[in-house]
Amino acid sequence: MREVYLDNYAATPPLPEAREAMLPFLGDEYGNPSSLHSRGDKARAAVEEAREKVAALIGASAEEIIFTSNGTEANNLAIKGIAAGSRRKGRHLVVSAVEHFSVLHSARSLEKQGYELTLVPVDEYGMIDLEELSSAIDDDTVLVSIMTANGEIGTIQPIKEAARIAAEKEVPFHTDAVAAAGTVRLDVVELGVSALSLASDLIYGPQGVGAIWIKRGLRVIPMFDGGVQEGGRRGGTENVAGIVGMGKAAELAMADMDDRIVRLSELRDAIITALPEKVDHLQLTGHPTRRLPWNASFAVEFIEGEGMLLFLDQQGVAVSSGSACTSRALKGSHVLSACGIPAEKSQGSILFSVGLQNTREDIDYMLEVFPPIVERLRQMSPLYAKYLKEGG
Amino acid sequence: MREVYLDNYAATPPLPEAREAMLPFLGDEYGNPSSLHSRGDKARAAVEEAREKVAALIGASAEEIIFTSNGTEANNLAIKGIAAGSRRKGRHLVVSAVEHFSVLHSARSLEKQGYELTLVPVDEYGMIDLEELSSAIDDDTVLVSIMTANGEIGTIQPIKEAARIAAEKEVPFHTDAVAAAGTVRLDVVELGVSALSLASDLIYGPQGVGAIWIKRGLRVIPMFDGGVQEGGRRGGTENVAGIVGMGKAAELAMADMDDRIVRLSELRDAIITALPEKVDHLQLTGHPTRRLPWNASFAVEFIEGEGMLLFLDQQGVAVSSGSACTSRALKGSHVLSACGIPAEKSQGSILFSVGLQNTREDIDYMLEVFPPIVERLRQMSPLYAKYLKEGG
Repeated sequence: MREVYLDNYAATPPLPEAREAMLPFLGDEYGNPSSLHSRGDKARAAVEEAREKVAALIGASAEEIIFTSNGTEANNLAIKGIAAGSRRKGRHLVVSAVEHFSVLHSARSLEKQGYELTLVPVDEYGMIDLEELSSAIDDDTVLVSIMTANGEIGTIQPIKEAARIAAEKEVPFHTDAVAAAGTVRLDVVELGVSALSLASDLIYGPQGVGAIWIKRGLRVIPMFDGGVQEGGRRGGTENVAGIVGMGKAAELAMADMDDRIVRLSELRDAIITALPEKVDHLQLTGHPTRRLPWNASFAVEFIEGEGMLLFLDQQGVAVSSGSACTSRALKGSHVLSACGIPAEKSQGSILFSVGLQNTREDIDYMLEVFPPIVERLRQMSPLYAKYLKEGG
Repeated sequence: MREVYLDNYAATPPLPEAREAMLPFLGDEYGNPSSLHSRGDKARAAVEEAREKVAALIGASAEEIIFTSNGTEANNLAIKGIAAGSRRKGRHLVVSAVEHFSVLHSARSLEKQGYELTLVPVDEYGMIDLEELSSAIDDDTVLVSIMTANGEIGTIQPIKEAARIAAEKEVPFHTDAVAAAGTVRLDVVELGVSALSLASDLIYGPQGVGAIWIKRGLRVIPMFDGGVQEGGRRGGTENVAGIVGMGKAAELAMADMDDRIVRLSELRDAIITALPEKVDHLQLTGHPTRRLPWNASFAVEFIEGEGMLLFLDQQGVAVSSGSACTSRALKGSHVLSACGIPAEKSQGSILFSVGLQNTREDIDYMLEVFPPIVERLRQMSPLYAKYLKEGG
């Protein structure tokens, strides 16, 4: 059976070059970057080289990058750390309704601690409303957080415009670029943002590493107290091998970005074009054109995402239904709900996230095995029976 | 030149078996444990197997283990998470004066937020005073944290007795076992503790992974909001490869512990016995007998730790002066200060931390090159000149 991995939003396979770069640091180069001897120096130099590479991917200064253990930590540090650093200025946060749970739940945690939270609504394509953003910001607002792009539905937000609105009101602006990095050109200066989150395992680096860029001068209270690592902004021994792997992945992403965008967009568009011809009652979710090159997401009516996933898995095809971080929670997607997609449709959400390892043959195979699965599930579906009975 | 690594407290070299176990998860097995397909299942099974192995090392139940990104995160989660989970019960913390900064600074952070903090003093050997501990606990105390052993000076604390005192007063007891695990037999039930921290890179696993065991029923507020990973107690994609490596390291540590204790103690004792015969004005720090099998720590009078480190490094010998997490901060050791060692002595602190890779020849080489370095540094030392002049 063919194995087709179309769940690159859950984790991208690490590139061989990233893996190779890591190996010495899992072997002979086991120094602790904090140690004051040559072995420590080598580890530290490797971490600093990785920092340069990650910074280059987003047009930032290396010393403003803090390595974390994943994108979730980066987002938690952004929301909680910046809010705590501005406690005296105010207690109001503005985030979009379609943020990843690591942003949304961090903001909810702060709400429990007395912060006020305003959610910026999105349109049917998941695009934020800039006027609503503008009117949401008040004198008490200490942070705005709008993701660069939504991994679940692919929609790319107008970050430059949103950041400008925040900047005019002198409010720091964080963007979760976890889903966007590597396939969307990012330049923190051009975007005008104050903080930006990244995850290694969405740019073909190893899992368990992330980073946050925080503009110089923006105060952030660390989550980890302890040593003076990461400029005192994150104590604790670094994941040297993982950081080196992320650095290599960032370097490759930077060098190869234009090609990647073209290749992935072709695969994505092959799905987006062909699937509606093969499966009816299918709705593309997210924005039709302003979307991530790797994201082909749909709502399939009358059936449930989980069923599709499991049957596809039996055919060797790995996909997801929304975000990997929430897939085991089996809750309805807050993203689709924010787009106004009713629960009976959104429960049939499915995400084909293509990756660099995929070929056109992978897509063709999926396009061949998927429609009969939908048909089979619909034959078991009381919702579909009802629809047919009502003369659909 | 011979390379002799005697800085195993900064990081132990990962064992080849741990490294081998990790490799598939940096290559073909790139699934996200949260994904609902076979590739996700494999990653999840690997994480759960590692959880069993880490639990076995400390006699705990696997579902009570939370993987973290290092020992510092584990300690932060213990202190901040348990304190936040008991907020309604009280606002007083009791920790020892010789804790690692990840415990001490976490407690200080809470102090800034309105908590009260009592430091339990230690004697000249770094051993906590159990009576002081007992009298420090009051009705408002929500957590006691005493490390199992201090990595800087090697002293092993009377944890069972300390935990019993806390238990009698119905106060949760956390122990930072980062320095102890792997060379001190640990059983959370026998010790009677409620939470225990571990780090992979001190048990010959990879850097950038840690774990905390928290007894069922003890409420902990997560630091990372987001997905439902780690039983909802730590959101974010797992470092699968790192976790697998830590699991393997824990398994090997468990199987090999008695041998390791014997081998390491012999190397340690070779240093502790020989060094005072070769270098005068040398004081063993920490407890003379109740000490970690790998720790040979000294205060060398009239000179500074940094000078010894750098000259030893030139001879191929890697050591540290206190904790790696603080070595770049270049501050005096709070541990030696708590033991009542005056600054003029403690600034000459040096730690030889032996490891499984070391041989008797390594120790002999160090014993050969170190005394001339001390002599050389003393010849440059105004303190030593003064001492000689005063008729020392």
